[in-house]
Amino acid sequence: MNTPIGVAVIGAGYWGPNLVRNFMGAEAFHLRWLCDLDLGRARKVLGRYSTVGATDDLETVLADDGVQAVAIATPAGTHLDVALAALRAGKHVLVEKPLAATYADGLKLVEEAESRGLQLMCDHTYCYTPAVSRIRDALHSGELGELHYLDSVRINLGLVQRDIDVMWDLAPHDLSILDFVLPDGVVPVAVSAHGADPINAGRACVAYLTLQLNTGAIAHLHVNWLSPIKVRTTIIGGSKRTLVWDDLNPTQRVAVYDRGVDVAAPEELGDEARRAMQVSYRSGDMVAPALVEREALGAMVGQFATAIRTGEPSLTDGRSGLRVLAILEAASKSLAQNGAIVEVAQ
Amino acid sequence: MNTPIGVAVIGAGYWGPNLVRNFMGAEAFHLRWLCDLDLGRARKVLGRYSTVGATDDLETVLADDGVQAVAIATPAGTHLDVALAALRAGKHVLVEKPLAATYADGLKLVEEAESRGLQLMCDHTYCYTPAVSRIRDALHSGELGELHYLDSVRINLGLVQRDIDVMWDLAPHDLSILDFVLPDGVVPVAVSAHGADPINAGRACVAYLTLQLNTGAIAHLHVNWLSPIKVRTTIIGGSKRTLVWDDLNPTQRVAVYDRGVDVAAPEELGDEARRAMQVSYRSGDMVAPALVEREALGAMVGQFATAIRTGEPSLTDGRSGLRVLAILEAASKSLAQNGAIVEVAQ
Amino acid sequence: MNTPIGVAVIGAGYWGPNLVRNFMGAEAFHLRWLCDLDLGRARKVLGRYSTVGATDDLETVLADDGVQAVAIATPAGTHLDVALAALRAGKHVLVEKPLAATYADGLKLVEEAESRGLQLMCDHTYCYTPAVSRIRDALHSGELGELHYLDSVRINLGLVQRDIDVMWDLAPHDLSILDFVLPDGVVPVAVSAHGADPINAGRACVAYLTLQLNTGAIAHLHVNWLSPIKVRTTIIGGSKRTLVWDDLNPTQRVAVYDRGVDVAAPEELGDEARRAMQVSYRSGDMVAPALVEREALGAMVGQFATAIRTGEPSLTDGRSGLRVLAILEAASKSLAQNGAIVEVAQ
Amino acid sequence: MNTPIGVAVIGAGYWGPNLVRNFMGAEAFHLRWLCDLDLGRARKVLGRYSTVGATDDLETVLADDGVQAVAIATPAGTHLDVALAALRAGKHVLVEKPLAATYADGLKLVEEAESRGLQLMCDHTYCYTPAVSRIRDALHSGELGELHYLDSVRINLGLVQRDIDVMWDLAPHDLSILDFVLPDGVVPVAVSAHGADPINAGRACVAYLTLQLNTGAIAHLHVNWLSPIKVRTTIIGGSKRTLVWDDLNPTQRVAVYDRGVDVAAPEELGDEARRAMQVSYRSGDMVAPALVEREALGAMVGQFATAIRTGEPSLTDGRSGLRVLAILEAASKSLAQNGAIVEVAQ
Repeated sequence: MNTPIGVAVIGAGYWGPNLVRNFMGAEAFHLRWLCDLDLGRARKVLGRYSTVGATDDLETVLADDGVQAVAIATPAGTHLDVALAALRAGKHVLVEKPLAATYADGLKLVEEAESRGLQLMCDHTYCYTPAVSRIRDALHSGELGELHYLDSVRINLGLVQRDIDVMWDLAPHDLSILDFVLPDGVVPVAVSAHGADPINAGRACVAYLTLQLNTGAIAHLHVNWLSPIKVRTTIIGGSKRTLVWDDLNPTQRVAVYDRGVDVAAPEELGDEARRAMQVSYRSGDMVAPALVEREALGAMVGQFATAIRTGEPSLTDGRSGLRVLAILEAASKSLAQNGAIVEVAQ
Repeated sequence: MNTPIGVAVIGAGYWGPNLVRNFMGAEAFHLRWLCDLDLGRARKVLGRYSTVGATDDLETVLADDGVQAVAIATPAGTHLDVALAALRAGKHVLVEKPLAATYADGLKLVEEAESRGLQLMCDHTYCYTPAVSRIRDALHSGELGELHYLDSVRINLGLVQRDIDVMWDLAPHDLSILDFVLPDGVVPVAVSAHGADPINAGRACVAYLTLQLNTGAIAHLHVNWLSPIKVRTTIIGGSKRTLVWDDLNPTQRVAVYDRGVDVAAPEELGDEARRAMQVSYRSGDMVAPALVEREALGAMVGQFATAIRTGEPSLTDGRSGLRVLAILEAASKSLAQNGAIVEVAQ
Repeated sequence: MNTPIGVAVIGAGYWGPNLVRNFMGAEAFHLRWLCDLDLGRARKVLGRYSTVGATDDLETVLADDGVQAVAIATPAGTHLDVALAALRAGKHVLVEKPLAATYADGLKLVEEAESRGLQLMCDHTYCYTPAVSRIRDALHSGELGELHYLDSVRINLGLVQRDIDVMWDLAPHDLSILDFVLPDGVVPVAVSAHGADPINAGRACVAYLTLQLNTGAIAHLHVNWLSPIKVRTTIIGGSKRTLVWDDLNPTQRVAVYDRGVDVAAPEELGDEARRAMQVSYRSGDMVAPALVEREALGAMVGQFATAIRTGEPSLTDGRSGLRVLAILEAASKSLAQNGAIVEVAQ
Repeated sequence: MNTPIGVAVIGAGYWGPNLVRNFMGAEAFHLRWLCDLDLGRARKVLGRYSTVGATDDLETVLADDGVQAVAIATPAGTHLDVALAALRAGKHVLVEKPLAATYADGLKLVEEAESRGLQLMCDHTYCYTPAVSRIRDALHSGELGELHYLDSVRINLGLVQRDIDVMWDLAPHDLSILDFVLPDGVVPVAVSAHGADPINAGRACVAYLTLQLNTGAIAHLHVNWLSPIKVRTTIIGGSKRTLVWDDLNPTQRVAVYDRGVDVAAPEELGDEARRAMQVSYRSGDMVAPALVEREALGAMVGQFATAIRTGEPSLTDGRSGLRVLAILEAASKSLAQNGAIVEVAQ
């Protein structure tokens, strides 16, 4: 057994407590600090029975030689400063999504980490769920065939954020999942975004993103803070099978349908000839694979430990966070231009 | 009791049999003919026990003085010719959606009917369902407040049409509903459409339409022939309440949620000041109003009779069909321009 | 092609119109009469365009040599008289469930039919659905292993019948299905029934039946006229797999779960020793087999024709109707005795 | 602010950790010990960062003067000994369901606590959920009218217990809820239980309980360890409205239906006359009341503190636990007698 990795959590707001709980439960880590500008909040999160240190002073944390890694759950606008300070103090860094407030900021972090040989990992939590893991397998193994379309709906009566719009709040989940599950060589190349702010909140509360992939496939995201009903469903249509992920259906999160439409024509025919052929319909069984229920955050924290120990980048490293930022920036540009198609920086 | 109106149904394909059944069940009508180029098909629809006439000759039907009205359920591309012939023969006309293959064609029909004082009605069947009727009431009465957004999903493993894309096949339903339920003065002004043809069918099989309304509200439609699961859900977000219509949930098709987000600030404040105020969240009850189950087509047929008898235009007259065509044409233009915003002709 | 079998439908009430429609749609039959004591009702069902004869005189129907078969959809209390008259007139007979009002009456019909070499068939419609057909296969083929338990819920806001209680109204569905799907040699041997009449309707409106099978398995039915929600779900637990049939979920009516509990012990050990062993849990995939949607009544009508043509008893012959009556009578006896266990006559 | 009440949790198995977490989160308590015969297990539950004491010695806990209350989450068979020891040491006691292994044992505990003026409370957790609280209100306020029937289904692929059957494992939930929600004066008077052990586990794994209430109403419970699907639905039919509680539907746990059957006859008519009258059907709206999501265990722990502070019995005191035991014992007797009706001791 290795010595546990000393870790500190920065930020005791919405997400911080989840990190605290999971680092405390992970044998690979020793949680030394919970740091928040609001010391009382940090103390409240730790509770009255904890031996973990509470502090409001980041310097203290970064000066602690026992701390080898830092997990940052502060507002996106502060990620650059906090993460940069941590990297410069020689700490491995885990950052909440989005990696940073801009692509340029994210790039600074990636380059700083790479130049120092430190881990920079994004907490793209969904990528560590059994469901998303199964989706990745289904796309990588060829079970679904070629990706035809991906349609994701993530709507809820959500907290209207003060600093970011609904796209920057919710779409990072879907974009990080997309980044995670796409087979090698399949990438989004352009994006169009439409949004609305019907409650006059000062930022989009409803948004639709359409992504064009380099293969001709289409991905579409619906994110919405104003829906009274909660929906978290993604349909992943493939040439062979289609997978439906309903994250709110715990007993059947993933369903793989052998149903679809085929163009029944030999490949060697020209397009015109193929279209003239009859299309045919598959109407086969549906399989809902058994998935082991586990807390995704626990698996994510485990990956962080592995990355630190081995020096290998994690599956959701800084580069993946950068790719998500590239799409978000393009989407924001499109939104400002009334939905114009904007290319995604590669 | 009035003498029944003599009626003929043209087209014995997918929808024709439904019209036949409903005209036969309506006291106000006397069904005299079912006409189809394929006489065997017409005979098969009527069955071995019927006294209704089958024919493959439209002229015979139009020459029959006992026929006062004609219902057309032929492919969209033929609507202009068949309907024009019927109008010119002095018959009232009911047409399947879409009214015609182009806006220009539709306009010809509307003008012909108006100049002759004949009814031209679109079979926008959904508008005659209790659910859509309830939605119209909810928007017109102010129960929902101002419309904030409308999001509709109509997906299924659908028949890939040979002559039209998924947008022209399925979106007429949603667009006719939208036209029907919007309060006076609220209209779509521009549209952006994205689509994909991943199975190489020669036309879009997946499409997303974003409509901008003149009030700043947004409407978004997702239509899809390739989905293994069937979804028919529309969310209508209002400033006071939000209505969810799930047409596949027969015991709870319509649900009205008193849940939402409010900007808790006096109207007289400027936007900047209002944004600084706290938003607040309503989390009230949901009410699923009792709806009488009835076949929409029966109600539609009844409306047709009423329009003929009274000379008043029906709720889904030719003009409403034209408005739907205007949006479809703009959407097709946008689709061809990779999602560019296209204004809707008023 | 054989000459169509001349058929008459007796009873134009709730179910009769469905029989009329299906006989009219079946090539194997020629529908000659619809007979009802209320001639106006019969005429209304046939409509204004039909060449089928309407009559209120059963004698006329039975005297018609062109009528070879009669389908009876009158109240249960009249089945004996009507069916007996039909059989004595040499007609094959199809009877709505339940076969008759008592076991003794049912037996008379069965014996009359058998002595005359005529078909007596029960319209156990559910047995002709793809779902129940699939269930039968799953139990007969060994896919589910041995039957452990069957739990059925059939509740709704139902019409309170004037002549029969909820058990006689709804349980025939479940009992005929049970009779249909059980493997050879597995039979109900005793029943206990509990009920309540909370609205003071004069008969049980809520009832629970517990059936003991000769194998030690248990079957339980919940039938209820007073539920505001509609549920039609049957769970069929087997030693290898468990099948769930949700008849209100058209896209996933049948689901086969490879989930369950096993006692992980060699068969040769005694019970005591086996219990001491650890139980283990299977948590495998679920498969929802593709089922062809078709109208069950059409398949039932087809079976009736086949039985008449071949002289072979149908899958739901009079004997199966008798077995259902045997259980219903035992259940009524139990209900009257406050739930006492009552043996089922074999 | 009062001084926190010193508390110890006994038992670190399945439920203990939940108690630990909730006592740690409650300001009214100071958690001093977690005690388990398996010291390692206790330590593991507390984790590496806790200042709470772990011990395997109950005597140490009971001898600690700082401990005023003890929460017992050990197997049912040990409740008598542990709780009795705690009461005799002058501690208030909270016990997991069921209160004890037998009615006689439970009675000993109740009498011991009452004679000493100590609180004895049952952790009937569900009674502290917003849903059950709403149900109690609906029955007590008359919103539902008189109770007609209650139907509860609690099935799952559950852990086959080594010491108790499925009835003693799961039915205490439903019976404690029933005890909690019934209006004053409405009580179960007799029970019939049917069960099966198809996997040869040595105890019933599937069971059905039918309860007769003194008002003529019926309550029915289905508990099952062998179901691959999880269902937790209770229907509470009343003379005015019917409430459906689906605990697995977080966004619509409670729904109140204004749907039902009425016998439309003046009360002064005799039964015979009323039955002759037409029944009528209500088909009104459904309302899903907004419920505040909160952890029930937190509310339960708060009630325990209040009871200790005020000396007033809690809503789920020892007497309520006894009433549940009375029904369970009668049900076991019925099960052994093949479903015979057994009176419930009052």
